[in-house]
Amino acid sequence: MSDTICAVSTASGLGAIAIVRVSGDHAIETVDSIFQSSRKNFKLNEAKTHTAHYGKILNDKTEVIDEVLATVFRAPNSFTGEDSVEIACHGSHYIQQEIIKQLLSKGCRIATHGEFTQRAFANGRMDLSQAEAVADLIACQNKASHRLAMNQMRGGFSKEISILRDRLLTFTSLVELELDFSDHEELEFADRSELKALAEEILKKIGSLKNSFSTGNAIKNGIPVSIIGETNAGKSTLLNYLLKEDKAIVSDIHGTTRDVIEDTVIIDGLLFRFIDTAGLRNTSDVIENMGIERSYKMMDKASVVLWVIDASQPLHHLDELSVSIMEHLQDKKLIKVFNKVDLIDDPTQQAFSDYYKKFKGDELFISAKHTLNTDQLEQILVKASQIPEIGENDVMVTNMRHYEALNNAYSAILRVQDGLENNISGDFLSQDIRECLHYLGEITGEITTDEVLGTIFSRFCIGK
Amino acid sequence: MSDTICAVSTASGLGAIAIVRVSGDHAIETVDSIFQSSRKNFKLNEAKTHTAHYGKILNDKTEVIDEVLATVFRAPNSFTGEDSVEIACHGSHYIQQEIIKQLLSKGCRIATHGEFTQRAFANGRMDLSQAEAVADLIACQNKASHRLAMNQMRGGFSKEISILRDRLLTFTSLVELELDFSDHEELEFADRSELKALAEEILKKIGSLKNSFSTGNAIKNGIPVSIIGETNAGKSTLLNYLLKEDKAIVSDIHGTTRDVIEDTVIIDGLLFRFIDTAGLRNTSDVIENMGIERSYKMMDKASVVLWVIDASQPLHHLDELSVSIMEHLQDKKLIKVFNKVDLIDDPTQQAFSDYYKKFKGDELFISAKHTLNTDQLEQILVKASQIPEIGENDVMVTNMRHYEALNNAYSAILRVQDGLENNISGDFLSQDIRECLHYLGEITGEITTDEVLGTIFSRFCIGK
Repeated sequence: MSDTICAVSTASGLGAIAIVRVSGDHAIETVDSIFQSSRKNFKLNEAKTHTAHYGKILNDKTEVIDEVLATVFRAPNSFTGEDSVEIACHGSHYIQQEIIKQLLSKGCRIATHGEFTQRAFANGRMDLSQAEAVADLIACQNKASHRLAMNQMRGGFSKEISILRDRLLTFTSLVELELDFSDHEELEFADRSELKALAEEILKKIGSLKNSFSTGNAIKNGIPVSIIGETNAGKSTLLNYLLKEDKAIVSDIHGTTRDVIEDTVIIDGLLFRFIDTAGLRNTSDVIENMGIERSYKMMDKASVVLWVIDASQPLHHLDELSVSIMEHLQDKKLIKVFNKVDLIDDPTQQAFSDYYKKFKGDELFISAKHTLNTDQLEQILVKASQIPEIGENDVMVTNMRHYEALNNAYSAILRVQDGLENNISGDFLSQDIRECLHYLGEITGEITTDEVLGTIFSRFCIGK
Repeated sequence: MSDTICAVSTASGLGAIAIVRVSGDHAIETVDSIFQSSRKNFKLNEAKTHTAHYGKILNDKTEVIDEVLATVFRAPNSFTGEDSVEIACHGSHYIQQEIIKQLLSKGCRIATHGEFTQRAFANGRMDLSQAEAVADLIACQNKASHRLAMNQMRGGFSKEISILRDRLLTFTSLVELELDFSDHEELEFADRSELKALAEEILKKIGSLKNSFSTGNAIKNGIPVSIIGETNAGKSTLLNYLLKEDKAIVSDIHGTTRDVIEDTVIIDGLLFRFIDTAGLRNTSDVIENMGIERSYKMMDKASVVLWVIDASQPLHHLDELSVSIMEHLQDKKLIKVFNKVDLIDDPTQQAFSDYYKKFKGDELFISAKHTLNTDQLEQILVKASQIPEIGENDVMVTNMRHYEALNNAYSAILRVQDGLENNISGDFLSQDIRECLHYLGEITGEITTDEVLGTIFSRFCIGK
């Protein structure tokens, strides 16, 4: 990995400044070969680390491509841990490409996706979970997801995992040492009660991290809110209200088919993912029932259910429908939204409120059309999301890869615990510990394969 | 202009890195108030100019917004000429906005369009024409326009103009001194023959600059090529060929109406602006004739005319049409493109070639549909554009504002010359010289108004 790579690291599009990043053993001398300092005879090669130098980038005919600022970083004190230069040029796409061209002609190659970060990982500047957080940080669009990415980048749980893993590694060495002396059955280098305590500790730690995933994932990808209700209750009007205005609307969620409308919006710093569904009703129509079945399935995916009820219609018994909804509600947070409040009187409100008491949850009378009480609805949503305020030291699993590794490590450590209870032989015990070590190592990148790295860094943009 | 301004200076969109620029008397201490260096107790205030410092940007609750690199520039050795800090943060839009928010809370304000460059101008870091070149440089998309913008930014003609202006200023002072001694009619401080020589020199210089505008403008905004021909000759097929493939196609030219198709494409580093027109033919239809009239008008705007002729149709006399085309051709470069060459034999080619000899210009037999000889057409176009290779020291006027000022200065200096011939009185002479000085000063910004500055810098992006 000692070849010199380069890439434009700023967003494409029209900007005042763009940054071309160069990293590798020959980064400084390569840039020197196309750079002419404004200080006579000065070479970047003489520059101290972390210093910026004004000058020109020249092409092979010594024509000026741009006047730039080149900042030199010397290994290991750079992002990648290698010698690096960052060239700040004018934001023209043409100029950026010309500078890249010159660098390529001097032996650089274009960096692959995330290659700068991958080098930082390879050079021990960060562990794998921190490297992954860099991508999350760049993609973050609200307060909560920013906080989680930042905490993960600044060390997060990977340090703790690393320490637990090291302790476990000591034990497995001792257990394996016992195997070498298998003639002496009475020998026990690894203290079984200490190992038991460690297994307990790891189980607890991993368990709580595992549990944080549903919240962490909701923060990163959006808290799923299902909007249900009978046909014409005003679900779509409400959805339009929730998604509208100057809020950051992300309209095209990857892989979302449009028969179920799904959109995200940031309310009070939290990302919500609203799922509009087909109207529910008691019907014998087969096709329509299929749609309703689908709505229930969507409901199952949600953590909050917004039930929209048209309060301007006569109150009617729900019978079977009510049973189905109850079944699918389970432990989800329910918000009963009685719509069209502008059309009804107080006794009617009371009647609706009373009838729906059997469904446990918050209730609110609104008019989606006239935006009455709709701001209250947003407050209730934020509360119902049960997303805690994320502090500086709060750590949550937001990454599916980490979650899977934690699950696997959890199963392995459970088997270790079980084995200890049942006094299984050292070689079986060792095998389970090794498996746990493997999965923990996957998170921090102590154990990794090119394939895993390839998958992780391919999600990065070029230039990072 | 001593308040501290800030803005994101990189393009918006997803990138690995973004730059937030801060400039003004309190730039360094303002950033210090939200920055925590990775070196204990280190403050940017202690930093030398042109040094980069790793650390964290904190919010008012001392939560980490991002880990950044802050580069300090001290007045006058910065882009703006003021104390400045450039904060390189992760490319997330959320993070960029949070950093800006923190800066605003510490008393910065958001920079207006081009305000950093405007300050550079105000602080004498560059003259006005150089400042304007910065915007051109950011917008440049091909080799020739890049070269012109770069030459202008690096001094261009404004230095020469400045020197001529200073010499002229000396003369006008002397002429005005004579007026103070008007009792002594024989007194002549300003040597009239020297003044005459200077006027001649200025006239020559301005004249050649004025003349460079049509080329400079073509390079910057595209060489206008009109595609004419009878209906169904294959004009649109040819246009599609010219515009297609991996060439940089800019599809929406500002202010272009779609009844005349206009598109630009870069061929061999030159920007061409193709103008497709309604088919020409002899007709008595009033409406159609209006369309044809329009085509002729478009032809008048072009510097190169591509005449597409369907060679698969029987050769026919053009009569009136031929006269009209000749009239509108004048000194434009004509390229006769005989289309559908795949359908005809050699004698037919010869017949077409002979008949069209009366129209002076290059000729080429092609098939637009089968892309036969079309690459040759591109070479002929580049040649016909008559755009010279732009060297390091070639200077051209590309800016309408400069062109107008030069025209006005030219008229004024002509009057000076005229006055000298006719021995007009000193006060009239002085008035004409002053007028010339005024217009020359407008180019370099020695004479300017807030309104002019406002117009110029409003075209910049924010952050530049």
